[in-house]
Amino acid sequence: MRNFADRLNDAILAKNSQVCVGLDPRLDHMPESLIGRYRDQPRQGCGCGRHEIGACFYEFGAAIIDAVASHAVAVKMQLACFEQYGPPGFKAFKHLCDHAAKQGLLVIADAKRGDIGLSAAAYSAAYIGRPDGFDGKIDNLGADALTVNPLFGTDAMQPFIDDCAQYGAGIFVLVKTSNPGSADLQDLIVAGEKSPSVISGSSSPTAGSAASNTRKFHEKVASLVDSWGENLIGETGYSSIGAVIGGTHPETLASLRKLLPRTPFLIPGYGTQGAVAADMSAAFDKRGLGALVTASRSIIYAGAGENFAASAAEAAAAMRDELWQSSLGNV
Amino acid sequence: MRNFADRLNDAILAKNSQVCVGLDPRLDHMPESLIGRYRDQPRQGCGCGRHEIGACFYEFGAAIIDAVASHAVAVKMQLACFEQYGPPGFKAFKHLCDHAAKQGLLVIADAKRGDIGLSAAAYSAAYIGRPDGFDGKIDNLGADALTVNPLFGTDAMQPFIDDCAQYGAGIFVLVKTSNPGSADLQDLIVAGEKSPSVISGSSSPTAGSAASNTRKFHEKVASLVDSWGENLIGETGYSSIGAVIGGTHPETLASLRKLLPRTPFLIPGYGTQGAVAADMSAAFDKRGLGALVTASRSIIYAGAGENFAASAAEAAAAMRDELWQSSLGNV
Repeated sequence: MRNFADRLNDAILAKNSQVCVGLDPRLDHMPESLIGRYRDQPRQGCGCGRHEIGACFYEFGAAIIDAVASHAVAVKMQLACFEQYGPPGFKAFKHLCDHAAKQGLLVIADAKRGDIGLSAAAYSAAYIGRPDGFDGKIDNLGADALTVNPLFGTDAMQPFIDDCAQYGAGIFVLVKTSNPGSADLQDLIVAGEKSPSVISGSSSPTAGSAASNTRKFHEKVASLVDSWGENLIGETGYSSIGAVIGGTHPETLASLRKLLPRTPFLIPGYGTQGAVAADMSAAFDKRGLGALVTASRSIIYAGAGENFAASAAEAAAAMRDELWQSSLGNV
Repeated sequence: MRNFADRLNDAILAKNSQVCVGLDPRLDHMPESLIGRYRDQPRQGCGCGRHEIGACFYEFGAAIIDAVASHAVAVKMQLACFEQYGPPGFKAFKHLCDHAAKQGLLVIADAKRGDIGLSAAAYSAAYIGRPDGFDGKIDNLGADALTVNPLFGTDAMQPFIDDCAQYGAGIFVLVKTSNPGSADLQDLIVAGEKSPSVISGSSSPTAGSAASNTRKFHEKVASLVDSWGENLIGETGYSSIGAVIGGTHPETLASLRKLLPRTPFLIPGYGTQGAVAADMSAAFDKRGLGALVTASRSIIYAGAGENFAASAAEAAAAMRDELWQSSLGNV
């Protein structure tokens, strides 16, 4: 299987698009035309509606996928939305992964998983590796890439990195998230770590220990991400080990791009969370490569009525055009 | 519903036990007497064996639960093991949660989840809150407590904390994990943060900025955990917001206990990972309260043959006695 970063970049160039549509289905946002049919049918199992909600999410998601497939490069499936409905939710998730792949979209499982040892290996197997079956390895849940939480350190990342190498998969490691509270831990100043400017040699010769004390926690994570990805650089110059960096912090995005020249960024925050295309421009190289920008609510809930899918297509196309022009304006 | 910490402490005192059995089912560790039956039966679905593996994990897990129920206080269900088998894996997880509850055990979903905003709320709803159904809230997957990753910061923790308050649930926040690589990020020195000894007033008056620069990242997380839990202290003196702290770092455990006097600890590392009861003694108060110690492989795979459940019961009973005596010796 071709390196994930190359597959991603092939798709970006084929579609002139850096759009990733976030599939975050929520019951209170389902179009009435859709939800009514599922709510009012006889209920399977315990009668709580889990099965029907899963089926409703599948129909909604499949319609969105069909509508945005020519405008977007990837879908980002928010596991939390599916997981809360248990096995039927997971079934909808898996079937939507399969459907997106059939429509030529890359699938990013936005699961933000992380653990240690054999548990880390099991999470990796679930989404991008291959779980053990009775007679050898079996298929995973059908993602091309997975979002991963780095808190556990290098040994806990190894199973994910190994599966990326073996199966042409990718991961996006959380470096700086888009929420206000991300500052609480991710922006802590880490003592004794050199700042990025010191690393790049641009600090003044008079800068002493004070300057070397200005590196933030998320910059330390970034330097680890760079090292984790160094053996997985594809032909297009990017690694299969990517980074999640919130678009709501444009200056951070620009400084992290300098620190991570070979890392694909997955950038949430566009649309409902307030970031615009210009905020992302530093993330792209002159080919328009380097980042996927995700939008969820502003695309999938662009229209509330029967024409929700057509509205989503329109919103995705507009986002594609805005991002593509903005990224090339960066040349 | 009674406060989670009080429910936990009631159970510890009723059973004279601080044992939490980790249910981490792995296909290559299933007893041959069990696996043969599932491997050789006609396969549902795509034929990959997912359904039969889920059913095998359920039978295995239920037998372990029945065997350890009188010796252990809780089971810790490792989501990764179940999740890799998709919907049938999740079904086994849910049914085992229900079975453990029927046997009087507290259920800790070891999912290490974390996200922001509505996604954080959905993860919380999945395990300890209540997801939205067609006609109001519906049942969750059946956990009493959930392990949570704190990297996202305070705003992202709020949905979990709110559900703990509303539903008498608990969370255990990752503070210091048991793997060697935990040092990579969790032990970073955080500049400008006061060290625990400074906080407790035990530092010498001559200690200057050098001393105040010696706080580690995981100690900063600990201070947040303390603040997150301050409104959820139960009658027994502990909060429903707990902490995961690896038993493989005895000195860290002791120093974190000083920093977190009201926080229940969930301590992995006993048994296969090398920690012994004496390593945990600082975690307990003189009543024997304050911590649950988890063991997975050393209990559930204590015997490989047909008598695996009896072997697990024996191992759990021995662990209970060792821990209980050791913790009371700490008076």
